[in-house]
Amino acid sequence: MFIILVKPQMGENIGAVARIMKNFGIENLRIVEPRDGWPNEKAIASSVGAANVIHNAKVFYSLNEAIGDLQFLYATTAQHRSITKGCVLSRDISSEVLSMINNGVNKIGIMFGRENWGLSNDDISLANKIVTIDTNPEFSSLNISHAVGTICYELFNNKANLSSESHIQEDTLATRQQMQYFYDHLFKALNAVNFFRIPEKKEHMSQKIINIFSRIDKLSSNEVQTLHGIVAALKTKSGEKNDNNSL
Amino acid sequence: MFIILVKPQMGENIGAVARIMKNFGIENLRIVEPRDGWPNEKAIASSVGAANVIHNAKVFYSLNEAIGDLQFLYATTAQHRSITKGCVLSRDISSEVLSMINNGVNKIGIMFGRENWGLSNDDISLANKIVTIDTNPEFSSLNISHAVGTICYELFNNKANLSSESHIQEDTLATRQQMQYFYDHLFKALNAVNFFRIPEKKEHMSQKIINIFSRIDKLSSNEVQTLHGIVAALKTKSGEKNDNNSL
Repeated sequence: MFIILVKPQMGENIGAVARIMKNFGIENLRIVEPRDGWPNEKAIASSVGAANVIHNAKVFYSLNEAIGDLQFLYATTAQHRSITKGCVLSRDISSEVLSMINNGVNKIGIMFGRENWGLSNDDISLANKIVTIDTNPEFSSLNISHAVGTICYELFNNKANLSSESHIQEDTLATRQQMQYFYDHLFKALNAVNFFRIPEKKEHMSQKIINIFSRIDKLSSNEVQTLHGIVAALKTKSGEKNDNNSL
Repeated sequence: MFIILVKPQMGENIGAVARIMKNFGIENLRIVEPRDGWPNEKAIASSVGAANVIHNAKVFYSLNEAIGDLQFLYATTAQHRSITKGCVLSRDISSEVLSMINNGVNKIGIMFGRENWGLSNDDISLANKIVTIDTNPEFSSLNISHAVGTICYELFNNKANLSSESHIQEDTLATRQQMQYFYDHLFKALNAVNFFRIPEKKEHMSQKIINIFSRIDKLSSNEVQTLHGIVAALKTKSGEKNDNNSL
């Protein structure tokens, strides 16, 4: 199980995250673009007895890199977002994770957004699923260490917190990196045919597309190859069509 | 539902407790002997959007005062203590609390100890029951706001978080204050007969006794009167006996 902090700001919070992770037996921390750089003295100080989690944390400068090798990715949100994506409540995540692990899916990540901001819709679109923590609708802004703590608590107290190192075949399910290559391929192809002709809508439309593919349940590497094949095939045909149109 | 912090030290932690309480819809905070006095600017600053919880917090200078009006009291511990007392796991507390509320027990408190220390055995002996948060046995020391957060999360997410103001008869179950009067009465009587004749053992023995009575399930006010009656009756008899002995 991997905890991924996306653009965290305060070292104190990163340290508090490390501590509560270790309290609940989860020690793989990945950090994307920490605002104050890395290493961070405040993170070490506030981790108390969990300095090893901080020292072993892996820092990335893009979210895509941080999630590249994962087979399944959750995005954590405090409230339901308008984005169309499968959603699990925090109290049900452990049984879901356990069932994935039993099916050979071991490289699972859970990402958390920056303080007071959460994850962007772009970030969320990359996830396979959303996990939501129900909170007081009048005061839903959780401190990041409390959001992480709630999820780690659920996993630990319901015995879904197994080792992240898998000895089961990892190539069955598509990794996030394979998905990213696919999106790159697809968008390049779409750009070539001027699919995103209204610039203001491009971002929204990209999210929407990623969101569709990221929701394919148990997509295998082999199936991603098939998707590549489809794009490659259509690309040629569209290219021809495009050429025809421009005549 | 009342959250009771016993001798908390850092204002930042008190503020973080207030915030996570409000996130999970619980707003009654009681604080016993805050180390840095009260009000505490740091507590207000770190409560972020939950300053109302801090402003409305009630501060007490003894634990007995803080729990006097409660009908049921939990003591939170990270690990199982050697003390003989009923114990519920955090994930089961909400169904238990819900069943109490359905039976007219509304004034329920949950107490948490100071940072890095937890509750003393004295404090725990006053509780009806222990609630335990399962943690990594190799790193079980939870930040106080995470301990409070875990319990509040369980109560909120499992719908046991009902209003603390009861309109059901509150006099059915004995309050903690009534229990305290009873313990005072009992210990005075025991002292009078030199029950605690080995001074070093007095504290341990007192805890043990309180621990026995505090575990009586659903003890009513009326039954406490009966206990008083028993002590009063025995006292006279012992007193006579004592007088006889001293003759």
